[in-house]
Amino acid sequence: MVLNSNKVENFSIPAVGASVNAVQMPPLEVHKVCLPPSKTTAQKLRHRLSEIFFPDNPLHRFKNQTWLRKLVFGLQYFFPIFDWAPNYSFELLKSDVVSGVTIASLAIPQGISYAKLANLDPRIGLYSSFVPPLIYSILGSSRHLAVGPVSIASLVMGTMLSESVSSTTEHDLYLKLAFTATFFAGLFQASLGFLRLGFVIDFLSKATLVGFMAGAAVIVSLQQLKGLLGIAHFTTRMQLIPVLSSVFHRIDEWSWQTIVMGVAFLVFLLTTRQISMRKPKLFWISAAAPLTSVILSTLLVVCLKSKVHGIQTIGHLRRGLNPPSSNMLYFHGSHLALAIKTGLVTGILSLTEGIAVGRTFASLRNYQVDGNKEMVAIGLMNMAGSCSSCYVTTGSFSRSAVNYNAGAQTVVSNVVMAAAVLVTLLFLTPLFHYTPNLILSAIIITAVIGLIDYQAAYKLWKVDKLDFLACICSFFGVLFISVPIGLAIAVGVSVFKILLHVTRPNTGVLGHIPGTQIYRNVTRYRDAMRVPSFLIISIEAPIYFANSTYLQERILRWIREEEEWVASNDRSNLKCVILDMTAVTAIDTSGLDTISELRKILEKRSLKLVLANPVGSVMEKLHESNILESFGLEGLYLTIGEAVADISSSWKAQP
Amino acid sequence: MVLNSNKVENFSIPAVGASVNAVQMPPLEVHKVCLPPSKTTAQKLRHRLSEIFFPDNPLHRFKNQTWLRKLVFGLQYFFPIFDWAPNYSFELLKSDVVSGVTIASLAIPQGISYAKLANLDPRIGLYSSFVPPLIYSILGSSRHLAVGPVSIASLVMGTMLSESVSSTTEHDLYLKLAFTATFFAGLFQASLGFLRLGFVIDFLSKATLVGFMAGAAVIVSLQQLKGLLGIAHFTTRMQLIPVLSSVFHRIDEWSWQTIVMGVAFLVFLLTTRQISMRKPKLFWISAAAPLTSVILSTLLVVCLKSKVHGIQTIGHLRRGLNPPSSNMLYFHGSHLALAIKTGLVTGILSLTEGIAVGRTFASLRNYQVDGNKEMVAIGLMNMAGSCSSCYVTTGSFSRSAVNYNAGAQTVVSNVVMAAAVLVTLLFLTPLFHYTPNLILSAIIITAVIGLIDYQAAYKLWKVDKLDFLACICSFFGVLFISVPIGLAIAVGVSVFKILLHVTRPNTGVLGHIPGTQIYRNVTRYRDAMRVPSFLIISIEAPIYFANSTYLQERILRWIREEEEWVASNDRSNLKCVILDMTAVTAIDTSGLDTISELRKILEKRSLKLVLANPVGSVMEKLHESNILESFGLEGLYLTIGEAVADISSSWKAQP
Repeated sequence: MVLNSNKVENFSIPAVGASVNAVQMPPLEVHKVCLPPSKTTAQKLRHRLSEIFFPDNPLHRFKNQTWLRKLVFGLQYFFPIFDWAPNYSFELLKSDVVSGVTIASLAIPQGISYAKLANLDPRIGLYSSFVPPLIYSILGSSRHLAVGPVSIASLVMGTMLSESVSSTTEHDLYLKLAFTATFFAGLFQASLGFLRLGFVIDFLSKATLVGFMAGAAVIVSLQQLKGLLGIAHFTTRMQLIPVLSSVFHRIDEWSWQTIVMGVAFLVFLLTTRQISMRKPKLFWISAAAPLTSVILSTLLVVCLKSKVHGIQTIGHLRRGLNPPSSNMLYFHGSHLALAIKTGLVTGILSLTEGIAVGRTFASLRNYQVDGNKEMVAIGLMNMAGSCSSCYVTTGSFSRSAVNYNAGAQTVVSNVVMAAAVLVTLLFLTPLFHYTPNLILSAIIITAVIGLIDYQAAYKLWKVDKLDFLACICSFFGVLFISVPIGLAIAVGVSVFKILLHVTRPNTGVLGHIPGTQIYRNVTRYRDAMRVPSFLIISIEAPIYFANSTYLQERILRWIREEEEWVASNDRSNLKCVILDMTAVTAIDTSGLDTISELRKILEKRSLKLVLANPVGSVMEKLHESNILESFGLEGLYLTIGEAVADISSSWKAQP
Repeated sequence: MVLNSNKVENFSIPAVGASVNAVQMPPLEVHKVCLPPSKTTAQKLRHRLSEIFFPDNPLHRFKNQTWLRKLVFGLQYFFPIFDWAPNYSFELLKSDVVSGVTIASLAIPQGISYAKLANLDPRIGLYSSFVPPLIYSILGSSRHLAVGPVSIASLVMGTMLSESVSSTTEHDLYLKLAFTATFFAGLFQASLGFLRLGFVIDFLSKATLVGFMAGAAVIVSLQQLKGLLGIAHFTTRMQLIPVLSSVFHRIDEWSWQTIVMGVAFLVFLLTTRQISMRKPKLFWISAAAPLTSVILSTLLVVCLKSKVHGIQTIGHLRRGLNPPSSNMLYFHGSHLALAIKTGLVTGILSLTEGIAVGRTFASLRNYQVDGNKEMVAIGLMNMAGSCSSCYVTTGSFSRSAVNYNAGAQTVVSNVVMAAAVLVTLLFLTPLFHYTPNLILSAIIITAVIGLIDYQAAYKLWKVDKLDFLACICSFFGVLFISVPIGLAIAVGVSVFKILLHVTRPNTGVLGHIPGTQIYRNVTRYRDAMRVPSFLIISIEAPIYFANSTYLQERILRWIREEEEWVASNDRSNLKCVILDMTAVTAIDTSGLDTISELRKILEKRSLKLVLANPVGSVMEKLHESNILESFGLEGLYLTIGEAVADISSSWKAQP
């Protein structure tokens, strides 16, 4: 029943056979499908684990080296400072001093502002710009990262902590929780790096981050209306609705002096930002603008002090260096879970920003940043920070960009910045007494408004609708629900996208491009011609439990449709189904069952089932599960072309 | 800098070029990589949705038909009874009567036993073997499914409900919750089918189910020691430890008469099971054994009644048909959540069993069972059951196998079985008064022991270690924690496996098999030769946010290793990297960024990056994101062979 000889008259050997003949090869040379080199379970596990945890093969430099070299490499590996310090020159130092001073002028006002965003003392912001950069300069491998507090992590910490604990009435507890959260953030970051689980942060896809940052920026900007409008009573909640209602239910508290001055400085800051964005060479304009505004606004307030009232200022700031805070870490009690949760979320977010920024500038200068090593560096820096009155820090995008543009060459620019902050802490803090809060709000708004990347969102929409959905979910999740839930929803959407692709993979019918050995999708390539009596189906996904039923049904539908088409167009009967397994990158036990069952079903219908080009891991599984034996020698081919040529010649042989 | 002409002397055109010449084609015919036919967003969405929800294209029969035919097809679609009833013959009826009576003899003792497993009245078990089979015979599309209560669903319902509500002291509430859970199970099943979300049950992979069933079978068997040992006080909890401690802390309650009789019948039942398994033709031995044992043991108890005490019996069973129970459904109050949860879990488990059994026997007889339609049928049957004093029912594996072996031809065998149960309910229930509980325990143990499929577990271990892990997780999860959590862990492991495969995909270096156009993995195919100056890397996964960083690092490592090898072996310099995109079945925005960044990095190192054979969806995304423009015409090839031939000839042209 395999051959319906009365219908074979239309049948012709496809062009493949001809071209193979023409090159003087044996007419039907059929290559064997090989198994991958056999390995024991332990070897396979070892290979798999090394691919999972050490894809970059960090030890390759240590191979075939003397003990001394190995020691030097080891030191350089763990402390990148040994890598660049020996070659450090006066020329490099000059560049680093210039860039270090430039980022210090940005870091001081931003440090004060971001600390406010986290509902912390302005001094904590300055402390956090002093110790962590020093530690990073020893451990970090990025040359352009400018370390310090960042807006997203500050915002998230402020939000999550103040939903449970008030930063004003329970000030001490709040501070303890902030340091504890910082400690756990650091511990989490360092562990991720140490356990080489860095890929965890990859699950925050770019799409998720675009939406998340835009949502956070909107909320933060609206929250800054508190300072910009001079409102005294404001919600501590972070959802859109309570924030908006705080703004508009307190119109009686709006202070026109604050509004005028605030809007003026905001316009100034946004203008300098625009100028620097249009002409990157003028980066120093936006870099210098915050400090200039702080100085100008402080002078203005001092001058107008006797005449104008109602402008809130920072107030007294004590002089002095970071006090130790390890005694303030809080490892028990009812709020520990909150501290850990806050630490996890801020930790993962600051890590994402730090790694992404580091990688961006590394790729611009063509050097590598080792993600796992960076995680350890950032984590240790935060753990040390939590013991010296600092809160969560990481590499800041805005300051790193300024650092890069100002010509930074090594992490020494961070040391220079720390020195500048040291001077500020020791001598200059009293000068901030009359600095108005509104200028901090203006600085924050200017910083976060750049996080709203509508062009990226538009590109997501254009290229990938499901990525756009993840982006929108995290945007609205953050705006209306909360930061962790918004993020969780977006990660869920991203993972769902992967699962959907696996659950409903593409399949297609392939045809032969005449004069070649090439088989391609017939709907895509007009040249591609269906081969009579054959149905060649490509499966574009691993065959898993999640899609094995679908694939079986879909393949049977392809066959049904082909048979209907053949019958209605009076072509030669379908006799063989070839599954192109090139893109089937893995198979599990359900998938193996499907293949085997499909073969049985087709056998009952007098159709031959053949697999073309299974990849190594699939071939192994086919072999281990003994399915290959049921297929026999004829059921496996290295290419579709060989399968078509060999099978059709066997039909010719037995008329 | 692209060409290092002093190192090109080793370079030779690969054999591909030669063979192409030999077949009288233009020496370097390069085929264009086509975009798929362009579609609007709405068309794409429609195509995608129809692939997700209607992969089987259920409306294809309705195309190009008259109105009358469409009506007939529609009726046949929704009520398969119209499909087979017109051709029903006396011959078929004869087979169906024989098989119907056979499964009734199994269904009656099993119905009573399984109801006990769910802590329900034995009568409920008989009711559930009467109404649901009748409804299924109208709606169901499987011809061999024998419908009724099953062990797994009974067990899970009994477990989940009695963890919160006692079936003895709160008997009425328990019964209400059981019917309500049945209603929600049916609602959930019917909705899944109606919304065409049937693929949800695919996420319970075979590996998960093997572990789950074995764990459940162990627990249930141990629980049956209550009946088999005659223990009166027994835990209602379902974890291993409380059950075992119940058995051994009540040694004083063990009754030797019960034990002797119980073990004797258990041995009898297990022996008949063994005989039928060895010789499938003798299926009637194990099919008749339960009813025989029930009759024998009842007679024994009646005879020995005056002499032997301490054997617990079923007791009085009222005669009569299913009373309506819609007034007992419970849609409010504190236990509603429990009823819904129980309904969901039993619903999905019974659905999985029913669909799997239906598909198994359909494939044996070469007909199709439509999963979504079956879900609607099973769901409606359960919803109707919950209003007529039935609890969760589905297609039972053991009874369906007997049904099939006894020669059932259509669902009429279910009607015959229902009729036999009807007669039992109306006239024979008083006969069960002296049926001992121990025989029910023996029947349950015999039924569930077949669920422990250690051979399948061994095969999982042999073929796929991660599948085995999922299996083990669900086994121990069910044994030590609880049914829903055990299942959730196993599904989590299965999904983690998919994500792991995406996060850490295989990559490999391809080489050229001489005399062909074929390029294959060099570690797998010894024939495959590396092409000088080229590095051909195959990527075996979609490029997503979850793996884009990994892939970039891994590809750079391949290049680094190749360059080191080239340098140490004095070969011609690496000049071009070809990415084989055949198995890259999808790409997202992060993946696009990776490709584009990789190209920039390689450009700085004077290396050319070229993509070979991107699939349709990837090509679309490359096009939409404008990355193609940066690649230009030279960056995309239809096959690796053409890429190698074209690029190396262009090098020859410009010396």
